[in-house]
Formats: sequence, structure tokens, C-alpha cells
Amino acid sequence: MSSEEVRVAIIGASGYTGGELLRLLLVHPRVKVTYVTSREWAGKPVTLVHPNLKGFTTLTFSQFSWDKVGEKADAVFLALPHKVSLEYVPKLLEMGLQVIDLSADFRLKDPEQYKYWYGYEHPHPDLLKKAVYGLPELHYDELKGAKLIASPGCNATATILAAAPLVSLGFLESYNLISDVKVGSSEGGMKPREGSHHPERENTIRPYEADGHRHAAEAEQELSLVAKRDVKVSLVPHAVSSIRGAFASVHGWLSTSVDEMELWKKTVEFYKGRKFIRIIRGGLHPLPDSKFVIGSNFADVGFAIESRLKRVTMFSAIDNLMKGASGQAVQAFNVSRGWPEDEGLKIPPLRPA
Amino acid sequence: MSSEEVRVAIIGASGYTGGELLRLLLVHPRVKVTYVTSREWAGKPVTLVHPNLKGFTTLTFSQFSWDKVGEKADAVFLALPHKVSLEYVPKLLEMGLQVIDLSADFRLKDPEQYKYWYGYEHPHPDLLKKAVYGLPELHYDELKGAKLIASPGCNATATILAAAPLVSLGFLESYNLISDVKVGSSEGGMKPREGSHHPERENTIRPYEADGHRHAAEAEQELSLVAKRDVKVSLVPHAVSSIRGAFASVHGWLSTSVDEMELWKKTVEFYKGRKFIRIIRGGLHPLPDSKFVIGSNFADVGFAIESRLKRVTMFSAIDNLMKGASGQAVQAFNVSRGWPEDEGLKIPPLRPA
Amino acid sequence: MSSEEVRVAIIGASGYTGGELLRLLLVHPRVKVTYVTSREWAGKPVTLVHPNLKGFTTLTFSQFSWDKVGEKADAVFLALPHKVSLEYVPKLLEMGLQVIDLSADFRLKDPEQYKYWYGYEHPHPDLLKKAVYGLPELHYDELKGAKLIASPGCNATATILAAAPLVSLGFLESYNLISDVKVGSSEGGMKPREGSHHPERENTIRPYEADGHRHAAEAEQELSLVAKRDVKVSLVPHAVSSIRGAFASVHGWLSTSVDEMELWKKTVEFYKGRKFIRIIRGGLHPLPDSKFVIGSNFADVGFAIESRLKRVTMFSAIDNLMKGASGQAVQAFNVSRGWPEDEGLKIPPLRPA
Amino acid sequence: MSSEEVRVAIIGASGYTGGELLRLLLVHPRVKVTYVTSREWAGKPVTLVHPNLKGFTTLTFSQFSWDKVGEKADAVFLALPHKVSLEYVPKLLEMGLQVIDLSADFRLKDPEQYKYWYGYEHPHPDLLKKAVYGLPELHYDELKGAKLIASPGCNATATILAAAPLVSLGFLESYNLISDVKVGSSEGGMKPREGSHHPERENTIRPYEADGHRHAAEAEQELSLVAKRDVKVSLVPHAVSSIRGAFASVHGWLSTSVDEMELWKKTVEFYKGRKFIRIIRGGLHPLPDSKFVIGSNFADVGFAIESRLKRVTMFSAIDNLMKGASGQAVQAFNVSRGWPEDEGLKIPPLRPA
Repeated sequence: MSSEEVRVAIIGASGYTGGELLRLLLVHPRVKVTYVTSREWAGKPVTLVHPNLKGFTTLTFSQFSWDKVGEKADAVFLALPHKVSLEYVPKLLEMGLQVIDLSADFRLKDPEQYKYWYGYEHPHPDLLKKAVYGLPELHYDELKGAKLIASPGCNATATILAAAPLVSLGFLESYNLISDVKVGSSEGGMKPREGSHHPERENTIRPYEADGHRHAAEAEQELSLVAKRDVKVSLVPHAVSSIRGAFASVHGWLSTSVDEMELWKKTVEFYKGRKFIRIIRGGLHPLPDSKFVIGSNFADVGFAIESRLKRVTMFSAIDNLMKGASGQAVQAFNVSRGWPEDEGLKIPPLRPA
Repeated sequence: MSSEEVRVAIIGASGYTGGELLRLLLVHPRVKVTYVTSREWAGKPVTLVHPNLKGFTTLTFSQFSWDKVGEKADAVFLALPHKVSLEYVPKLLEMGLQVIDLSADFRLKDPEQYKYWYGYEHPHPDLLKKAVYGLPELHYDELKGAKLIASPGCNATATILAAAPLVSLGFLESYNLISDVKVGSSEGGMKPREGSHHPERENTIRPYEADGHRHAAEAEQELSLVAKRDVKVSLVPHAVSSIRGAFASVHGWLSTSVDEMELWKKTVEFYKGRKFIRIIRGGLHPLPDSKFVIGSNFADVGFAIESRLKRVTMFSAIDNLMKGASGQAVQAFNVSRGWPEDEGLKIPPLRPA
Repeated sequence: MSSEEVRVAIIGASGYTGGELLRLLLVHPRVKVTYVTSREWAGKPVTLVHPNLKGFTTLTFSQFSWDKVGEKADAVFLALPHKVSLEYVPKLLEMGLQVIDLSADFRLKDPEQYKYWYGYEHPHPDLLKKAVYGLPELHYDELKGAKLIASPGCNATATILAAAPLVSLGFLESYNLISDVKVGSSEGGMKPREGSHHPERENTIRPYEADGHRHAAEAEQELSLVAKRDVKVSLVPHAVSSIRGAFASVHGWLSTSVDEMELWKKTVEFYKGRKFIRIIRGGLHPLPDSKFVIGSNFADVGFAIESRLKRVTMFSAIDNLMKGASGQAVQAFNVSRGWPEDEGLKIPPLRPA
Repeated sequence: MSSEEVRVAIIGASGYTGGELLRLLLVHPRVKVTYVTSREWAGKPVTLVHPNLKGFTTLTFSQFSWDKVGEKADAVFLALPHKVSLEYVPKLLEMGLQVIDLSADFRLKDPEQYKYWYGYEHPHPDLLKKAVYGLPELHYDELKGAKLIASPGCNATATILAAAPLVSLGFLESYNLISDVKVGSSEGGMKPREGSHHPERENTIRPYEADGHRHAAEAEQELSLVAKRDVKVSLVPHAVSSIRGAFASVHGWLSTSVDEMELWKKTVEFYKGRKFIRIIRGGLHPLPDSKFVIGSNFADVGFAIESRLKRVTMFSAIDNLMKGASGQAVQAFNVSRGWPEDEGLKIPPLRPA
């Protein structure tokens, strides 16, 4: 590796997002993973928990130590549960380390939202201002040099990327949108529960948190920025039987008859230059499909209009562990470092898979 | 069997809905299946095509013959493609046979709708008036003695049963509803296509016919009747990787803050006495799940409200081959004959499956 | 129901085999389920845990009580873990109740085998003699009037039914057989574990207990009886990503060139009169397939010979929760009562599923 | 890219193995894909058929032309059906091009075997001698500079890699082995058929070609070389419901009690230096699992012994499109060029997937 490589720590590396960060960062050309922690697996080889990584690393998990992280890392990825990140971020920043936080703890600008959606008083409202929401498609310039990146939630990412272009154009009758999201089982993380038990989870089609999923808060924050007006999002997630994949169908009503081709052009323009957005239109597979992004950092985006009713549905398909979590974190990290957005992420989706 | 048993023919019995009719009718206590036809498989044993039925029948497929059907059957189930049923229904009725048509050809009252959605001029507008839409939950009394039953579409069934109770109450801000439907692969029938090829279909999450699915026509017809006003439905189907299962999430906005418990009570009341509706609320599995109806004729129905935005989503889960097709046809047939609605259908869902 | 119906208790009714017993027995024409117990769910409605059964029962789970079971039941199905049944069986028999035990505790005649395979000294070797191995295909006559039925294991059932006909004929070069078994996830029961977590279990193809699975003991006992000589079975199970289904491929070598048609005839003859064996040969689906038995009590049986090497593989496909557990228990119970073997079990397999 | 990059053509690039070659070679650091052909899709963009590759190529499919291939390519990958390759290989070699053939047409040394297994008289027995069987684990040195590489079959690869170490040691009682193989649906290629129709293929557990699969010929050829004696293999494939994954369980009997640890050491030694073999033993996942190789070129290898019966089962898990087809072809190509074996293949498996 080059002498300029950045030394990276992953805190909480034994779950699926941690494993996915490892899968990406262990072969990233400008990164050296130097420190990985896990409370449960400290002292054990990383490949015990992540057998797919055999042959790629001989690292073992450590118990977290402030001294060690300071000594070994330039940048720290936090793959921790919500609220746990709060204990790490301020001090890591003080120590001069860059932080990429995959939890929700720094995604929302308005501290009130933490009370409403997460049930806690945010202890660091100042840091909320400093944090950059790690969606490079909307915050590319702010991410350059960012010290604290709040990596977006998977359902929020899918919803925002589907809706942003049309929301920005001002053609909608109402800015109360419905995001009907369908997700694979890996979104629930690595810990077995009743609902993730294979005989119960496979073949299911069922909604959950149907009275409003909290990723709506992120979607509202970001889409309001894009729309330059107040946007409300009702996010209704559904479990389906894939392992990877998150698919958002964002339903709205057009205020007027529109020139569909014009909308396509403006959608393309909206995402111009962003390497991980693919606009899907026409051909043999004319609409986004979660299958065609699996294993990659792409978000496939498109829309359909039912002119009879002026209904528009904006779609996006992502791999929830990639563009919905770890891939996006690496993408934002790349941008923050001034590297090409797709460094270490030029991975074609697996197909069929 | 009793001497009063009804002799039944199934025309087009080699597909999935035909097979499902056979699975039900071969063990139905008041029915004798006497005649089954298939163009492709005439002369071959039924169990060649439907190996699950080995041990239940020694019938062979016949080529359709007007003489034979008249001689052998009292009632005829048509499991034929759309437009093909048109060639059979008038004459079968003339011959004095009861007809249960599983195609779309007689579901819509307004002939104009056939032009719009199916692209043909309906040749028998008089029969459209005579046909009873075979959804016993809405047309129980009309079905008694019905000579022509137009059995509903699967996505329409899921949408209508989810939305009917709340639509009937008058609390919605708008009667332009979105039905975001998720369906298993058996909905596409028995014929292999690119989109049904296992490596392409398994794990998918993808919309199709996203500019408006034609089952919307049925949903609009029936929900307008229930609401006693004009209801519009935008039906957006999505393929997910189950084999059986259709799940409708019908999204709307409440016009006012409502007493949720009151809505539950009225939902229960709405379906009072109907044996195949189960209202799902609370418990370990508080929302409908397609898994819990597989193999049965149930529609599990419920709703969720996001009070912050007054968004309501009405859910229903059905087995698309049962309540969405063959089971419902048998249920309507039972009602038409004055038998218990669930005769031959007292089948608990398979679980886990 | 008729006045002659038998009153049945199910002890340990909250798991998958308990749920499957309920699914069958609640609609069995000669049975009334009167008492169901669960340590964990005592006091709760059965349908809380088994939501598929909504509409079929208003029973609640009880804590087990000797008094109550004696008062309420004529026959008791035990769906308990291995070793736990030991605590119940002797006293239930003393109380004059018929016992159908779905655990392994009374399946093996030789007490030594319990030490070797299950790691305990069997406390009731006398009852091992009394117990009838509940495989009606081999023990039909003994089952009539049986007071203690030891219902077979799923992998053992698949292995025995595949191999019994050819093993009985004496054409094999060696009686050391390999049973390579492939199983769905429901075999592991209802309790979530790491290995059953959907993201880990779906799509897997992996062996487990590959140094010898203990159902081999049953298979050896039964196949030795059939062969009238010592038969050894090496049973190697593999997890695959179905929910239901157990498939045995029992590999052996023929001692001589044989007339294949003769073998087919003798296989048919071997199972003559048994209603749940279907011999699969020729046609569009010329070999057993777990898909074509799902939801039913059938075992589909067949074989293939590679004449070049005189290799024979004997196949069987079952639904592990039906013929592999609860369905078979009901079948044996029917036989014990002198009822038709298929009473309450005339259920065609679901297809597609 | 460097000026030394090799120009590569892919003939028959519209199927799954062609698509997988593209996925690998489009991002291979020493390769430039210059020419891709398809009869069916000539003139159309590659990404029409392979939507996962959007963003990686702007190539269009061509009709094959001898002139063009000669002009544009240094090496040619043939992803063609069996027998079709025969028409291309001799002339491509004459033209001085290197050929990597993914069909079976040049895998077997003995022309007689083509009559027996493939039903044709091989027209180029001389080329059979010249071809190198493209399994780098056994033919590393021969592959250096090879002009004609015959890339192995997927089921053969899994069988050979599982069995080679123990077969080489001489401890087996018999060299008639059983390879019970379980495979995902992508093995059947891209063309929809009845058996690949999602409702028929998903959830299945069924054998096919159970009287002997022709990949046995390759396995026998290679394992006989390794064993330095005649080895026979009965290969019995089973369809299971994964998309990717091939898993071989090769069953045999030990001639003697062996020191298991010694066998592990010798297995490690056997594959010493080969980068794509991972020996699986102990830990949380003590046996190979197809899930842990998906998307990668690894073969995970291990074994289990039932000492009671001296039965040994040798396991291997591969991704059938990678190590079972296109990944292996690229690996052999790397070796032939004197590059690192894993050039362009340092891809960690996807997990969970």
C-alpha cells in the first residue's frame, strides 16, 4: 500500500454493517484497517465471526480502548446501536480523529426530533450542527473535509434518492408523501429474534412499524431542503423475503399534467456527475429492481406516472448494507478525503443473486 | 358422496388456478368433478400435470366439447385467459349450466371499462348486468342462486377487502387511494417467462405495470359501491420473492382525527358474519402477514394510523390462488348453492410455510 | 361431532409440531381437542402463538396438570423435547391414557442405543419393549390398539421409507448405506438460534452433525428388521433453504445387475395398500420432489440406478412436519383406533408452494 | 490501464457465464474487453441484457466475425453450449489466439468418453491432448503459457476439490465414490424452462439426472490422476432453492482407522500455495457452507468422519458461476499469463447473501 494510506478503526465490527465495512475497507486501495473492536468477541479472530473474510485478514477483535484507537487510527467508523454512538463521538472528535457514524445519533439537525422519534434528549446539539449528513448525492461539497459524518439510514436513503428529483421540481399537488418501503432481512441486523427466525421470516409479506417509521425524520429533513419547502413523509416499511435489498415506492400526486420526457431529463440532470445513481428507464427491465444492485453501492432510480389520475410513484432500489449503510459510509469517507467518490467501490452488482 | 352432489366441470384445468380448483373440488363434500379440459394436455392424466394430486383422482384431461360438458356437468368453472371466456359463457348459460368464470371478462359492469383497460369492445353488455361479482363479503345475497359468477382478480380482492370498511365510513380526506400491492410468483401463472425464471424472480423487489394495473377497475367499481361515492384507486403491484401471497397496503389520509378503537369496532361490524375475514389487531403479530393465510381462503385485514400526519394504511393479506382465485370461486359457488360459505374450505392455513 | 369422538390432549403445544397437531386435530372428524399445555404460554390463547389457527379454536394453553389431563383426555400427544417425555409417559400410561410420543424417548428397542446416541441411561427399558414404532408402513398391525406409540423422527422416516423396499429384496452389495438428507428450516423447531436467523439460513447449503446424525439409530433398527440382517446407516443431514421438506437420497451399490422394471414392481408391492406412499416413476416429474408433498402426509418414493457402476440411489420426499412428525403421529393414531389410516389426513399437497 | 493489457473477446456473452465473465473482466486490471458477441442480441448494448453492468461498459454485442475477433483480441473466452465450441476452437488457435473454453468440448482426454457421455464422436482428438484442464489447483504448471484451456464443469469442480486430498492419500476402502451434489438455479443458465419457473423451482429439493451426471467423467479423469489409480465417481445432482451455490458431499469409506488430525494436516498441505482453497475446520461454522463463498472464487473444503462406521464425507462449497465457471476461467487465464492467480479476483464473498 502507499505511504499515504489512511489508518482506519471500526468500532462495533462484529455485526452485519461492521462486516460489510470490513469487506470493503480490507481491499480499499487507500485504507489500512488497523483496529476493530467488539465487546462480545474481543480476543477472537475477525474471521471467526465473518467467515467470508477468511483469506483477507488476520486481525482479531479488541475491547475498545481510547488509547489504542488514538494510537492506531486516523479515522473511525462507528457501527454501533443508536444512543451508544453518543458516548464515543465527542471524545473521538476531540482527539482529532475523523468520525463516520453509522448510527442515527447525528443525522438530524433539530434536537426536538430526537425526543419525538428516538425518545431521548440529545446531549450534543452543537455537534448536530457540525455533523454532515453523509449522502453524497445531496451534500457532496459539505462532505469535503468533514470531521463528523452522520451516515444515513437505509430506508431514508431509498426514500430520499427516489423522491429528491421530482420534489425539487415543484410539480406535486401535495408534499405529504407516502414511502412504501420493502426490505430484506439483513436490515434487522445480526441478532436472532422471533421475527428473523427463518421459518417465520422467509416468504413473509408483512408491514412493521406501520404507524410511522423513524427514518421519516431524515427523509423529511433532506427532502425539505431539496424542495425548499416543508415536506412530510409517511414511511411504511414491509418485510419481504430477500436477504439484501431495500426498495422505496414513494407515492404522490402531480399538480398538473406534465411532460414525462421533461421529467426524465430533469431527473438525469439532478443527479449529474454522481457515480452511484443509475436512472432506470425503458429496455427489458424498465423499472428499478433490487436484484440489479446487490453487492454494489448503486441506487437505481426511476418513476412511473398514471396519467389517468395524475399519480406519480418514484422508485429506488438499493442494497441496504451497501448504499443503505456501509458502502455509503465509505463513499462519503472517500468524498471527505478528496478521493474519487467510487474509490474501493467500483464493484459491479452480482447477477443473478 | 350424497346423491345431491353437484357435478362440476373445469375448463382450462391445467394451470395453477385450475389445479387449485381441483385440489379443492376433488375433496369437496358436495361436489363431484366430472369433466376437466385442457387443449394442451387432452388425453393425459390430470396427475401428469398436477403431481400433487396423485392419489386423489384418476381423471384425464379432455378436449372441450359442448356435448360432453352439457351431458356431464351442472356447473362449470372457467379457468381461462381473459377474452377466451367470452367464447364460452353465453352458450353455457343458454345450455342451463351455472358458470363461475375466473377471468376478468364479466367482472366490470360498465362496458366502457373493457375498452379502456382490456382493449376490447365487450360483446355481451347484457351479461355484464346479469353477472354477480363473486366477492361474498360484498355480494352475499346476490350470489344466492346466481347463474353467472364473475370471480374477482387477486389484486382487486386484496385491495377491496383492505379498504372497504374505512371507505364505507366516510372519514377519508380524499377518495383517490393508492394500493401498493406485493405479490408472489404464482400470480403470473404456470407458463415460464423471462421474468419468472428462478434466478431472475427469486430475491426480486420490483414494481410492474406501475402506470396503473387494471385490477384497479374492479377495485374502483366495488369501493364506489361501498362508499356510495366515486372512489379512485391507483394500483401499483410489486413482485416479491414468495410463491404464494398477495398483500395490499392501501394508503389514504384521514379527514379528521378519529377514535381508532371506534374504527376497529366498525371494521369488525362491517365484516360481521363473513367466515373468511379475520381482523388482525394486537398480539404477537399485530398486522396481517401473507404467511398466516397460505393454503387457506382467509383474508386477514387490519389498518394502521400515523396520527402525526393523519395517514391511514389499510392492509390485507391473502393467498392469491385461494382467496385471490380458486378458493374464492368455490366460496362464491357455495353461497350460490345455499351451502355454508366454507363448505370444503375449512382448511387452516399452513404454518410455517 | 359424533358422540364417539376421542378426547385428545396435546402436551407442549406451542411449538411447530404442536401447532401442526392442532392444525390437523382441530378439524379431525373423530377427535375433539380438549386440553393443550405450554409452560411458556399458559393462560394465553392458542391463536396468540399460532395465528394461522384463528377461526378454528378458542382454546387457551394450560399449565400441565395430572388431574386435568386425566379428566379431560382419552389420548395424549406429547410434543416435548427429548428426555422430557420420559417424565410423562409412564404415569400417563398408568392412568390408562393412550400416549403418542413425538420425541425420541421410546423409539429405540435397545437401551444401549440411548447411551450412545442420546447420552442417557434409559430409565424404562420395559416400556421400550411395549412401545410401537409409529411408522404404519412397517408396523400397521402392531399399531392396532397400541397404548404407547413412539412417533418416528423426520430424517429417519425419510431414510427408512426410501430404503425399505430395496433393502428387503437382498440385492445390495453392502448393507452399509449412506443417507444424504436435505432438510428445510422448520426441522429445527420454533426457537430462534444463530443458525436459523434468516440472513444466515436462507440460501444456505451446508451439512450439520456430519459425523453421524442420531436418527441413524432408528433407521438401522427398522431397516435391519426389514432386511432380516444387520443394516448400518450413515445419516448425513444438510440444511437447505426451504421451510418445509425433508429429502433422503440413500446411496448403495447393487450386488448384481438387476431388472429395473422388476424392482419397480416389487417396490409397488412392498407398499401395497398403504395410502401415504406414492411411487414416483416417469412422467414430467420422474423423481420425488419435496415440493409435491408440502402440506400433506405423503411420502413420495422412488429410485435411480447408474448401471455403469451398479450404483442405486433410493429417494424419498416428505413434509417434515407432516409425514416427518405430526401427520404421521395422527396417521398412527388413526390406525391404533381402527379408523381409516387417512382419517383427517385426506389433504392434497399444496402446489405451487 | 497499462499498455501491456491483454485484449479479450467473449463469444456468447449474453448468458450467465458470459455476464459473469464481463463482471470480472471489465474491472480486471490487466485486461481490456474489446469484443463481445451474441447471436440473439447483436447490435444491442451489453447492459440491455446485463443491467447490473450499467456504469461499467458501453459495449454492444456483435455478430461473431472471424475477421473482427482476429483483429480485436489476443485471447478469446468461449461461453457457448457444448458442441458449439468445437466449431470455433481449432480456427481460433490457428489464428494464434489463446482460447479459454467454458464448454465441456475439450475437458476430457479420452475421445471415447465423448461418445459415452455427450453422444458425439470428437472431431479433434489431437486438441484434446493439447488442451489443459483449467483447474489451477491440479494443473498450475501446465497452465503456464497454455494456448487452449478447457475450463471445468461446476459439479466436477466441486467434486474434485472436495475429494482430491483424501483420494491422494490412499486410505479409502473403495475408489467408487458417491458425489451427492446440491446446486442453485443459476446452474441451469439463462433460458427459462418449466423446471426453472419460479413457482416450480423455489423451495424444491429434487434430484435430476440421477442415473449419473456427465460431470462424473471429468471427476473420474482428474481424481484418477491424483490417486494414481482408477477412481469411479457416481455424481448425483440435486436442485435446491438457492440461486448461486454448488455443494458437493463426496461419500466414501475409510480402509482403516485414521488419525483425523493427520488428515487435516495433509489436506492443508495438498492445497498449499493455492489462493482459492480455504480449509474449513472448527469455529462457529465448522463445515463448508455455500453462503460463505457467494460472489467469490473460493472453494471451501473440509471433511467429516463417522468413526463408528469409518464413513468419510468430503465437502466443498463453491459459487457455481465463479469457481464453478467464470471465476475459475479467469483464474486459469491469470496463471496462463504468468500473473498472480488472483489478479482481478481478490473479491471477498458477499455476506449475508
